[in-house]
Amino acid sequence: MQTFDNLFNHRSIRKYRDTSVPDELLEKILLAGTRASTTGNMQVYSIVVTTQPELKKQLWECHFKQDMVLQAPVILTFCADFNRFNTWCRLRKAEPGYDNFLSFFTAAIDALLVSQNVAVAAEETGLGICYLGTATYMADRIIEVLGLPEGVVPVTALVLGYPAEQPGLTDRLPLDGVIHRETYREYTPAGIDEIYREKESLPLTAALLEENQMETLAQIFAHKRYTKKDNVFFSQKYLEVIEKQGFMNHE
Amino acid sequence: MQTFDNLFNHRSIRKYRDTSVPDELLEKILLAGTRASTTGNMQVYSIVVTTQPELKKQLWECHFKQDMVLQAPVILTFCADFNRFNTWCRLRKAEPGYDNFLSFFTAAIDALLVSQNVAVAAEETGLGICYLGTATYMADRIIEVLGLPEGVVPVTALVLGYPAEQPGLTDRLPLDGVIHRETYREYTPAGIDEIYREKESLPLTAALLEENQMETLAQIFAHKRYTKKDNVFFSQKYLEVIEKQGFMNHE
Repeated sequence: MQTFDNLFNHRSIRKYRDTSVPDELLEKILLAGTRASTTGNMQVYSIVVTTQPELKKQLWECHFKQDMVLQAPVILTFCADFNRFNTWCRLRKAEPGYDNFLSFFTAAIDALLVSQNVAVAAEETGLGICYLGTATYMADRIIEVLGLPEGVVPVTALVLGYPAEQPGLTDRLPLDGVIHRETYREYTPAGIDEIYREKESLPLTAALLEENQMETLAQIFAHKRYTKKDNVFFSQKYLEVIEKQGFMNHE
Repeated sequence: MQTFDNLFNHRSIRKYRDTSVPDELLEKILLAGTRASTTGNMQVYSIVVTTQPELKKQLWECHFKQDMVLQAPVILTFCADFNRFNTWCRLRKAEPGYDNFLSFFTAAIDALLVSQNVAVAAEETGLGICYLGTATYMADRIIEVLGLPEGVVPVTALVLGYPAEQPGLTDRLPLDGVIHRETYREYTPAGIDEIYREKESLPLTAALLEENQMETLAQIFAHKRYTKKDNVFFSQKYLEVIEKQGFMNHE
C-alpha cells in the first residue's frame, strides 16, 4: 500500500532548498505524468518546464510574487494544448474542428490529470510540490512570458523542488461531507454545522478570526481571500484568454 | 518506487467482473482522493457514488451506452461544487461571490485532481478504472439523474471495479513531443513527423485506416471520432449547463 501512504502524506511545500532537480529524475517524473488517462489518447496538453532564473522571475511576477516560485528550482506550467494536434491534422490532410469550448475543456482535463500524476510521482521521490492557482488568474501574462501560441491556454502550474520545511497535514472536511450516496442529497443547516465543525474549531481558525477581526471563517474566505470582485475580474480575463487563444468559435 | 510502477502500469479497463467493491476499500480510496491539493483548502467538489442498478442504467444511457458503465459495480461522478461552500457562507453571515466562470473552473480543477488521486489509489489495490469523457457531453442529463442543484456541474466520471481483461499499455507520444524547455517552441513539420512517427506506424493504425477507408490517422480523429459538428454541439450544451447551474454571472 505504498501509494496510499504517499497520497495520505501529501502536503503543499512553500519553502525550498537551493538544490536543483537532476534531469533524469525530472524526466522520469514527467514520463510518469504522461501515463495518465487522456481523451481518445490525443494527449492534448503541453508541459512547459522553466528553470532559468530570468524566466522564473517573470513567472514569479505572474504568480503574485509568491516566494516559492523564485525558490523552487523548477516551475511546471500545464497547458491545454490543441496546437500540436491541429498542426498534425493540417499536415495530414485533416480539417481540425477544435476551436471551441468543449475542446478547450477536454484539453484542460487532460492537462490536469497529467499534473496530478506528476505531483504524485514527484512526492514519491522525496520532492515537494505546490500548485499555483494563479495560473488561471494571470493566464494572459503567462502566455506572453512562455510564448504560448493559439490553441494553448495555461490551466495550472506546479513548483517542484526539495523541501526546506515539514508542515503538518492540513485539515480536510469529513469524507461524508464531500461524497453523496447514489444521488446528490441537499445539505441541511445541521449537516453543514456537522461538516464544518472540526475546521471551525481549529486553533488556526481562532487565530485567523482574531487577526482579521471577523466573526466567521466563511467571512474570511468570501470577504477577504476569494472575493466576488476579484472572481468577476479574473473570470472576464480568463474567458477573454480562452477566446483569444481560439477556443470560442461556435459556428 | 512503488508509485512509479503503479503510474507506469496504468491502463483503462473496459471489461469488469461481476464482483462488488467492499465498502471499506472504497472509503479508503475516496479518502485518499480527498488528500489532493485543493484551492485554498475549500474542497469545492463533490463525488457522487452510484451503485444501484436502476440508477446505473440511467447513467449508462447518459454515457453513450458504453457496456462498462453497466458492468462496473461503481460509477463515480466528480462534480465542481460550490453549493456546499455557498450554503456554509450563507449560514455564517458571509456573502458568497462564486457565481462566475473563474469559480466554476477553480472547482473543476479541484474535482479533477481528486479524480486522478482516486484513480491512482484504486489501481494500487488491483481495481481497474476508466474515465468517461461523456460526463461533459451529457452534463444536462446527468444533472437530472443525480439531482445536482445550482452550483454543481459534472466534470468527469470514473467506472471502478475488478478487471475482466488485461489490455496492453497504450502508446504515448515521445516525452519531447509534449514538453517544452523554458518556453514554448513552435512545432515544425519535421518535428510533427518525428513526434507522430511511432503512433502512425502502429499495426493498430494500419487496421483503423483499412477499416475506415481513410488516408491518415488524423482524418479518423478529425472527421470521424471527434468531429467539429459534435464539438460545437456539445460546447453549446456544456456552456448552457454552466450558465444554468449559476456560474455565468459577471456583474
